[in-house]
Amino acid sequence: MNERQQARRRPGGRSARVGAQVHRAVTDLIGDRGYGNFTVGDVAARAGVADSSIYRRWGSLEALLTDVALTRLNTQSPMPDTGSLASDLRTYAAQVAREITGPDGPVVLHLAVALSGSGERGARAAEALRDERTRQLQSVLDRARARGEDAPEALDVLDHLLAPMYVRVLFDMVPFTPEYIDGLVDRLL
Amino acid sequence: MNERQQARRRPGGRSARVGAQVHRAVTDLIGDRGYGNFTVGDVAARAGVADSSIYRRWGSLEALLTDVALTRLNTQSPMPDTGSLASDLRTYAAQVAREITGPDGPVVLHLAVALSGSGERGARAAEALRDERTRQLQSVLDRARARGEDAPEALDVLDHLLAPMYVRVLFDMVPFTPEYIDGLVDRLL
Repeated sequence: MNERQQARRRPGGRSARVGAQVHRAVTDLIGDRGYGNFTVGDVAARAGVADSSIYRRWGSLEALLTDVALTRLNTQSPMPDTGSLASDLRTYAAQVAREITGPDGPVVLHLAVALSGSGERGARAAEALRDERTRQLQSVLDRARARGEDAPEALDVLDHLLAPMYVRVLFDMVPFTPEYIDGLVDRLL
Repeated sequence: MNERQQARRRPGGRSARVGAQVHRAVTDLIGDRGYGNFTVGDVAARAGVADSSIYRRWGSLEALLTDVALTRLNTQSPMPDTGSLASDLRTYAAQVAREITGPDGPVVLHLAVALSGSGERGARAAEALRDERTRQLQSVLDRARARGEDAPEALDVLDHLLAPMYVRVLFDMVPFTPEYIDGLVDRLL
């Protein structure tokens, strides 16, 4: 029985364990060396799996990095549903601020940068990240409109709420004060 | 006579030539491999100089990268002085847009990312980049106030004019339309 068959037969078993080990290895390598400074072979060695296991499951380093970033986006930034748009956006912005200034570092941000300008596959991965962020935001904005609230476009939220925080992390202008984050939301609305 | 003495005796001669070759090598390597994927040795080989020449002049790869980015900032984005703040900021924003979407790629952006989270030396380099951008902006804003115009803070320009463009490059949402760029300025003012 080969590894792929094993993975199929025991979902949540070896397959899930390997997935978690590989994700952890990627996060650790990003912290130690930064994006762009490790290969699939480095990830495999750190995770204690064969290179071929990674290529079989993810296909490329870019695809693996995108999977790690999307998983983190989804688990770390569940979209709030508090009943008002201002409150939803304040909660969301505070979550994103914690995520990009947290101990594992600005993982999504660095990934987007590493992928942008790294060719066709990188561009597709950056697009997947962008679409996931936009999709998350759209749900909050749609709910607000359904309640009769005025809501900005998702791209305005990207430009004037997420982008300032991303760039301040890049330029080492952290941590953010709650006043700064709430001020971005107030200005947007 | 050693190389340092030569460089001192003929400023604009060998020293300037080596500087230009090394800067060109860095820009080429960024284009070919991306930030973080080359060493001082790679730069030296591409530029046709000794590793020791680079270490003697710049001290570290981070310092060399910062020098390249600051030189590009200064030569590519001279601050406009058109007589009105709105017009200055539109011109400036259009320059930055050309710079970060140009053929050599988003060099300042990638540098800031590569440096952020790369330890104490990287943090100092990111700070130098940030201070240079802020200093450039401050001159435009100070002139506007001296003319009696209302002007935003330099950090507001970073947050709501530069940051959206930077992040859209990262997420591969280019090119920018003139309407988009002017819209950012109008919203800021």
